[in-house]
Amino acid sequence: MPHKSTNITLVAHAVSERERWRLYGHRGGVLWLTGLSGSGKSTLAFELERRLFATGYRAYVLDGDNIRHGLSADLGFSPTDRTENIRRVGEVAALFAGAGMVVITAFISPYRSDRASARKAGKSGFHEIFLNADLAVCEKRDPKGLYKKARRGEISEFTGVTAPYEAPESPELTIDTGAMTVEQSLRLLIDYVDKNFKLPAE
Amino acid sequence: MPHKSTNITLVAHAVSERERWRLYGHRGGVLWLTGLSGSGKSTLAFELERRLFATGYRAYVLDGDNIRHGLSADLGFSPTDRTENIRRVGEVAALFAGAGMVVITAFISPYRSDRASARKAGKSGFHEIFLNADLAVCEKRDPKGLYKKARRGEISEFTGVTAPYEAPESPELTIDTGAMTVEQSLRLLIDYVDKNFKLPAE
Repeated sequence: MPHKSTNITLVAHAVSERERWRLYGHRGGVLWLTGLSGSGKSTLAFELERRLFATGYRAYVLDGDNIRHGLSADLGFSPTDRTENIRRVGEVAALFAGAGMVVITAFISPYRSDRASARKAGKSGFHEIFLNADLAVCEKRDPKGLYKKARRGEISEFTGVTAPYEAPESPELTIDTGAMTVEQSLRLLIDYVDKNFKLPAE
Repeated sequence: MPHKSTNITLVAHAVSERERWRLYGHRGGVLWLTGLSGSGKSTLAFELERRLFATGYRAYVLDGDNIRHGLSADLGFSPTDRTENIRRVGEVAALFAGAGMVVITAFISPYRSDRASARKAGKSGFHEIFLNADLAVCEKRDPKGLYKKARRGEISEFTGVTAPYEAPESPELTIDTGAMTVEQSLRLLIDYVDKNFKLPAE
């Protein structure tokens, strides 16, 4: 996207990322969960946040429900609006990562190009986590009754039903949330975070 | 603003604000610096971040220069775009505050109604800090040479020159940055933060 802004220069933060990492004992970064509605994004995000927080990580969830009441309250669910929503979330997630936090995002984020933009914003701290569950499984769970509504034609452009989900081609981690329990999935996520975010004690 | 989003409900974060406060030893909140270009916003914001960080606060600066390269890269400087920029910053600042951080924003934010929106997003954790320096002083400092450009007609709608600055009517704190040194201003800010953000040791 071309920058419309002029007369601006990048300013270095007075407190460096590394100083923050040192204080917190872990790197900052983005755990970008992606998958169909019902694949477990929100459940895993909030449970992961709780477990990480309990073991000393500065973790924070950005999720569709809360972002859409604030930052993206002006956006709907058309492809253009979904793209802009994910663009904003990617930028905000990058800011949180820059502040040293482990930010967990829980968005369907169905388009590959949108996730690529979020990856670009998040730089080396971006980790794409594919929650891979069959549509049939997700539709059977249907925790919010949205698939039923979509099948009745009450929601237009519903991912997996009337709008595409473009599966990740090379995610950092794939979890078969269709077959695994929440506890098994969490174990994989926590191991991944410990391996990729924790700093050696000085 | 009406919410275009449908089929969404507010989800409580699994880790509560108070749990974060307890771990960090301080509340989260927004220090919203407002004032003319040259009134000292960036200088004070970054120096305050450093001092707060050094004494154990989780502090983080959101500033115009960095936000406009990312989250607001699609926006210019028309009144409408400035309003949307400040709306987004207000929402992001509120997210950071919700994550338990002391977020310091450094934006001219010339319109009262825009700051009122940011206050609404930030709820009880919002603190408006008016950096009050005369236009003449700011223009004399002109750290980025922007007043000169504006006077030559090279920047349209420059606050204080060709666009209005609506001074805060009841800010939580006013600092006469036209007369005070950086060190004196910082002292006031740090005292304010200690008084309003620090939690008693348990």
